[in-house]
Amino acid sequence: MKKVNIAEKLKLINDHWHPRAAGELNGQQVRLAKLKGEFVFHKHDNEDEMFLVIKGTLKIDFKDKIIDVNEGEFIIVPKGVTHKPIAEEEVHVMLFVPESNINTGNLKNELTLEAESLEKI
Amino acid sequence: MKKVNIAEKLKLINDHWHPRAAGELNGQQVRLAKLKGEFVFHKHDNEDEMFLVIKGTLKIDFKDKIIDVNEGEFIIVPKGVTHKPIAEEEVHVMLFVPESNINTGNLKNELTLEAESLEKI
Repeated sequence: MKKVNIAEKLKLINDHWHPRAAGELNGQQVRLAKLKGEFVFHKHDNEDEMFLVIKGTLKIDFKDKIIDVNEGEFIIVPKGVTHKPIAEEEVHVMLFVPESNINTGNLKNELTLEAESLEKI
Repeated sequence: MKKVNIAEKLKLINDHWHPRAAGELNGQQVRLAKLKGEFVFHKHDNEDEMFLVIKGTLKIDFKDKIIDVNEGEFIIVPKGVTHKPIAEEEVHVMLFVPESNINTGNLKNELTLEAESLEKI
């Protein structure tokens, strides 16, 4: 059992849209990622997804509206809701998702990162 | 679906050792609390428990060692592990726990807050 320093772990990440697992509990994972640019519209049929912004402003496009999530704020995207994360400037984020979560949800494309290949950090 | 500003929510809390639910996902809850003083040794037989420190330093006494969890750090206490949170100065904390989590775990005393009576914030 060890504590985790979020900023220290984020220093080890040098790419975008590639979350790493920083902790596991109750079948859920704590993931850390750096984001920059636009992701793709997708949804998770069976999983709610939480974004906690550590640094920067994460925009989430829900098609009918865009919500700005700033540093020190979080948002929970319910299962089934189509969304596209956008980071105009680099954003550091902590994610809370089930261990089985796949980043692109219902889509499979070059951004897809299978849950079983997710590295620990 | 709304974003949550952690600092704004914490301003609404004026007591200690009394978490409020600030979000729910996948059967888990995001809880916010202010802590000051010593809690009691307890354990959770079936639930891992995550403490993310928003402000201050949270000491967690595991009987054989004490771990200081500082602002921007988190720790996951695995199920079955006896622990006592200590806040020498006031600490602001975000908790990630199953919805069924009871703050005093295997103990029932004057600090006990049943999961069903947990207020939302």
